[in-house]
Amino acid sequence: MKLDHDLINQLTLKEKAALVSGKDSWYTATIERLGLQPMMMSDGPSGLRKQVGTSEQTNINDSVEAVCFPASALTACSFDRERLNQLGEHLGIAAKAEKLGVLLGPGINLKRSPLAGRNFEYFSEDPYLVGELAAAYVKGVQAEGVGVSVKHFAANNREDQRFTSSSNIDERTLRELYLATFEKIVKQADPATIMCSYNEINGTLNSQNQRLLTKILRDEWGFKGLVMSDWGAVADHKAAIKAGLDLEMPGKGTESVDEIVAAVEDGSLSEVDLDRAVSRVLKMIEKWQPDDADQSGSYDMNEQHEFARKLATDSFVLLKNEHHVLPVNEGEKLAVIGELAENPRYQGSGSSHVNAHHLVTPLAAINRARPDTTYKAGYSLATDDINAKSVAEAVSAAKLADKVIIFAGYPERMESEGFDKTSIDLPTNQNQLIDAVSQVNDQVIVVLQNGSAVRTPWIDKVAATLETYLAGEAVGEATWDVLSGKVNPSGKLAETFPLRLEDTPSYLTFDADPDEENYREGLFMGYRYYDKKKQPVQFPFGFGLSYTTFKYDDLQLKVGADHVSGSLRVTNTGSRPGAEAVQIYVGNRTSRIEKPVKTLANFVKVSLAAGEEKVVTFDLDQRAFSWYNPKAANWQLDNGAYEILVGSSSADIRLNKMIELNWTPERPIKVDQRTYIGDLIKQDKFAEAVKQAGLSDIFSKLADDDDPTAKMFQNMPLRAATTMGVSPEKINKLIEIMNN
Amino acid sequence: MKLDHDLINQLTLKEKAALVSGKDSWYTATIERLGLQPMMMSDGPSGLRKQVGTSEQTNINDSVEAVCFPASALTACSFDRERLNQLGEHLGIAAKAEKLGVLLGPGINLKRSPLAGRNFEYFSEDPYLVGELAAAYVKGVQAEGVGVSVKHFAANNREDQRFTSSSNIDERTLRELYLATFEKIVKQADPATIMCSYNEINGTLNSQNQRLLTKILRDEWGFKGLVMSDWGAVADHKAAIKAGLDLEMPGKGTESVDEIVAAVEDGSLSEVDLDRAVSRVLKMIEKWQPDDADQSGSYDMNEQHEFARKLATDSFVLLKNEHHVLPVNEGEKLAVIGELAENPRYQGSGSSHVNAHHLVTPLAAINRARPDTTYKAGYSLATDDINAKSVAEAVSAAKLADKVIIFAGYPERMESEGFDKTSIDLPTNQNQLIDAVSQVNDQVIVVLQNGSAVRTPWIDKVAATLETYLAGEAVGEATWDVLSGKVNPSGKLAETFPLRLEDTPSYLTFDADPDEENYREGLFMGYRYYDKKKQPVQFPFGFGLSYTTFKYDDLQLKVGADHVSGSLRVTNTGSRPGAEAVQIYVGNRTSRIEKPVKTLANFVKVSLAAGEEKVVTFDLDQRAFSWYNPKAANWQLDNGAYEILVGSSSADIRLNKMIELNWTPERPIKVDQRTYIGDLIKQDKFAEAVKQAGLSDIFSKLADDDDPTAKMFQNMPLRAATTMGVSPEKINKLIEIMNN
Repeated sequence: MKLDHDLINQLTLKEKAALVSGKDSWYTATIERLGLQPMMMSDGPSGLRKQVGTSEQTNINDSVEAVCFPASALTACSFDRERLNQLGEHLGIAAKAEKLGVLLGPGINLKRSPLAGRNFEYFSEDPYLVGELAAAYVKGVQAEGVGVSVKHFAANNREDQRFTSSSNIDERTLRELYLATFEKIVKQADPATIMCSYNEINGTLNSQNQRLLTKILRDEWGFKGLVMSDWGAVADHKAAIKAGLDLEMPGKGTESVDEIVAAVEDGSLSEVDLDRAVSRVLKMIEKWQPDDADQSGSYDMNEQHEFARKLATDSFVLLKNEHHVLPVNEGEKLAVIGELAENPRYQGSGSSHVNAHHLVTPLAAINRARPDTTYKAGYSLATDDINAKSVAEAVSAAKLADKVIIFAGYPERMESEGFDKTSIDLPTNQNQLIDAVSQVNDQVIVVLQNGSAVRTPWIDKVAATLETYLAGEAVGEATWDVLSGKVNPSGKLAETFPLRLEDTPSYLTFDADPDEENYREGLFMGYRYYDKKKQPVQFPFGFGLSYTTFKYDDLQLKVGADHVSGSLRVTNTGSRPGAEAVQIYVGNRTSRIEKPVKTLANFVKVSLAAGEEKVVTFDLDQRAFSWYNPKAANWQLDNGAYEILVGSSSADIRLNKMIELNWTPERPIKVDQRTYIGDLIKQDKFAEAVKQAGLSDIFSKLADDDDPTAKMFQNMPLRAATTMGVSPEKINKLIEIMNN
Repeated sequence: MKLDHDLINQLTLKEKAALVSGKDSWYTATIERLGLQPMMMSDGPSGLRKQVGTSEQTNINDSVEAVCFPASALTACSFDRERLNQLGEHLGIAAKAEKLGVLLGPGINLKRSPLAGRNFEYFSEDPYLVGELAAAYVKGVQAEGVGVSVKHFAANNREDQRFTSSSNIDERTLRELYLATFEKIVKQADPATIMCSYNEINGTLNSQNQRLLTKILRDEWGFKGLVMSDWGAVADHKAAIKAGLDLEMPGKGTESVDEIVAAVEDGSLSEVDLDRAVSRVLKMIEKWQPDDADQSGSYDMNEQHEFARKLATDSFVLLKNEHHVLPVNEGEKLAVIGELAENPRYQGSGSSHVNAHHLVTPLAAINRARPDTTYKAGYSLATDDINAKSVAEAVSAAKLADKVIIFAGYPERMESEGFDKTSIDLPTNQNQLIDAVSQVNDQVIVVLQNGSAVRTPWIDKVAATLETYLAGEAVGEATWDVLSGKVNPSGKLAETFPLRLEDTPSYLTFDADPDEENYREGLFMGYRYYDKKKQPVQFPFGFGLSYTTFKYDDLQLKVGADHVSGSLRVTNTGSRPGAEAVQIYVGNRTSRIEKPVKTLANFVKVSLAAGEEKVVTFDLDQRAFSWYNPKAANWQLDNGAYEILVGSSSADIRLNKMIELNWTPERPIKVDQRTYIGDLIKQDKFAEAVKQAGLSDIFSKLADDDDPTAKMFQNMPLRAATTMGVSPEKINKLIEIMNN
């Protein structure tokens, strides 16, 4: 809606104060006097949660009907920018129909620990993958005229005590991992708003963090939109406005207004700061408030349901498939086991919860296709306790079946926004059921429903495992599409599945302290950790099987003036059509810094008919080779050798080549008191300088690398040559000669 | 020597300036005018390195004859305070005879990484063990009237770029690990001097670190002695004096004097600061300068050699002994293989190097006892290359022997002060030799000589392994004493032997960056890491076998007013006399902080005749249960449950019991805006307050732990109750009621 560009000057102080807080949980303030209507926003990264009736947050499951799409934990496994863009479009269409101005999502925090309660709502452990997929999603939503709120800014990687705990992170890790996802989306997708998270970073509450909300977000990255708080993240509204927060959500009613009015009146908040926030609220309303004329008021939910189904099938990850037990064949007698078949977990709990349009359970979908299928619950989701009778029934059914499909996963009580897990094990009754059934049938297929990485201690006993995460309302149809072979699975894990919780990078410290969350693992998070430690995992990042097979060859690389372009040939060597997510990693073999073995730098999803081959191309930009140097407060790219690795997963590298980059102008090396003798000793110029300074007798002893004493003295800076009896004067002379 | 108490006032500025730097590498300045004689100091944690002739440091192996004792890497394995005290006495006697004022040692840095080049000179990965043993050593030296210089203060845990790199460590880790060893020695053993190390801590050069050298060392710990620099550690002498450094070593001649005189004259250094340093130098000379009359000038080196032998045998660690292959029996035909038998590594390289009085090689000792023993070199220490002929000769000899003793270890070129290792593997030719010999003889005994933890990939192929580290000049006799059974080994590993380098706690970051050494693993160093991660190791901390066996029982614990006293019974259940190092660990089961599973809190070495039993007693002080709280800048002891674990190693816990401590006065819990609802929801008082505030309808929904939405809201602080529609006013009222 078009606003009077002078509107801000017509507002009273009280009206301004009203505008920088929400009217309630979902609306901006109304200024009837000036015709300023409230703009609505709603939760909904995986489907709208437009709340109706009361605005009380506790009635979290009370919202309008909407299509429930798969959670980001699953959609990320598509490794498919186009699908995420389409998801965004569908969400934008729905939001537009529901007259929303801003959709509160996507959540783009990294999965630092598999215990983090909100992982289901996030994409990946890898910042490149998150940034690419979420940028496509954001563009999709906003193309429909609906704004997004990219959340939760930033380093909100734990749920317990999320309102008060400090995420303690070194600057390089912050930049290369936890801020990188936001940086990309801000720069590439121009999101309407950013949602500031609850937590502190290094002791400063994010909602009051000037460096985060203004210096980095706006001054460095050029963000032009609005910053709103996560619901309840504001502890000191004045301080928050000063730091760069524009909109407190939800508002605290008249108290919100009164405190701001009082602050301006007593001079503790400048009206300039207030106006800055007000103007951003007005700009948001102007740009994203839907015009009534634009609204159809309805949209095709059935079409969206079909998209939800397709998105799920393109994302499911086939973790194991021995002897082609999948897809199931016509005529095979199936037993379906596990309460999750009947009461599936298909969406997350908390603010992303959707009042689903049309849930189709796996049991319903399978029964429709195979009416002779038997079903036994096997366990109860309400408890971890083993029910011997249920197990016995399941075992009996399994004995009579050709193939058994067991549905297993985390019950909702174990996994939700708002609290963290303490284990990555399935409930005892589920693991025990899988063991028991595997003993009587060697064609067991486990279908997993869970929001985050899970242990699979029974993996060697079962024939196949399909990871479906939280698949949305079309869970049943999508699952059967893949089990039956109608769709060939092509998802790849966007997170590592570890062998044990103890193996995870943040295990030593995650949630160890209510106040301090120390990111001790630094850059070595996700596959960056397992790679470097050569730590075996259950399933690596980027892993996923297909019903067909792919061959990679002919990797070509060309170093350009400011990017590297590459290509390779991918061939479908099997007898079914299929799609493959080709992953391109970069390994820095040059910089003398802490560094991972490799990092994801691009990916391409390619569909191939049986026997077909395609040449896949990719570009690698400078960022792919850069590291953040905290001392220089900038990204640094070092000249030298880099390895390009192309893989079907992070652990299955099919092709690799070295390249040499020479993009950064060489700085002349200046010798000083801190320069190490070992860095000079083999230079002819130094030998000459030593001679000129009359020090040959001392320095000539130090060149022998097999002599430990010589090596010890090589590892001394020039200033410490005094301990060898060299005078400071002569050291200065040496330095002077070397620098001339 | 007695100094005029007014001496400082008689000194000219130039004389003062001269006194705060060494005259050269080994002497303090001479003030002839006032009869102030130079005081000498010498290297020598494991035997004197009193340098003669030139004062040039590069002639590092040119020193007077002295007995070479075992390196600290070995003596620590004794777990025997008394032996370390005796070692100190022997060193003190030798130093006194050589007219030294101060002996430069012991080195007490922790073994953070097995790659650190100077580990051989250090004791352990555990600060309690280091502190106890080194305090006993220091007391021994100083009891003889010779001062020590406890080094290297602090956090000098890497050799590469040690003059300029920054050890980046969080405060709690610094206090609980890297400073704890120094703290104990300062408080318990009153060392004459502390040697300040080369490196920086968190960006401040230690020699200029006021907080380290003055605030912590003197103000907090009460250190009364002198702080000298490590050789060449001073970069800016003025800044160093201001920070609390007293003596620059070595001096830079007239330049050292001139720069201090100029600084005082131009006002950039106050004479008060200079006087403080001068007075500490004078106090050191007064207290520790030997009087000529006191000196005998000679001492019994043969007696010291015998002590070196005993100390070594009491420290060797028997790592494996299958089917009692050790001790070797009379009449068995032995083959000795490995150049290290003939050219043993028995001491470290660098400043701890000793011109040994009387080296007895293993080959000589064995040949003396068993003249029919055959010897083959098998490999050359000069190279890693496999020599097929040497291997073939060794294999032939092994075939003809009943038992084979292979000597293996790191050649000196791999391990020294001054540079770090890049691998913990033995040279290829040694590992290959062990493999080859093991194939033809199943009674292979490997004797290891190395300064630091080593990989033993052949461990399953050999029958026995004895770790002898760097055993000193009596290496041959000591080794044969244990191999032959004259002495029953009783050493326990003072460091973990990992399965792989990648498993080590600091692997991700150790020596990754020339400038920054990030202690990312924090507290989780050594066994604290492997314990918590449940990471299998080759040999755990505290592990060592005996030729006999010990039974532990009857653990008794008594919680006193400020300490816990305990006892247990240890029984020698075998048929030989032996000694056992009983280890007592404490596990904090109370504090909500990052914490290890357990930490060493005491140890007792007990000798038992065959069949004998003894009751062993121990005390645990408050520190054993405390953690350093950086926010409070103090040690904190939380009331609650602690586990006491008694073990024969860190991985072999034989007895354990829980205790409940209640030593700290309870502080009343104050409810505020940041108090989490979940911490209140089950309190009757809160239910009452909620009722009074008229909020029962909202809060009553939140008590159900099986409802994820309720759990989410429990995990909210009171201030965020606004998002549930509770007014800030009512929240304030709730808080008020709760606090009254």
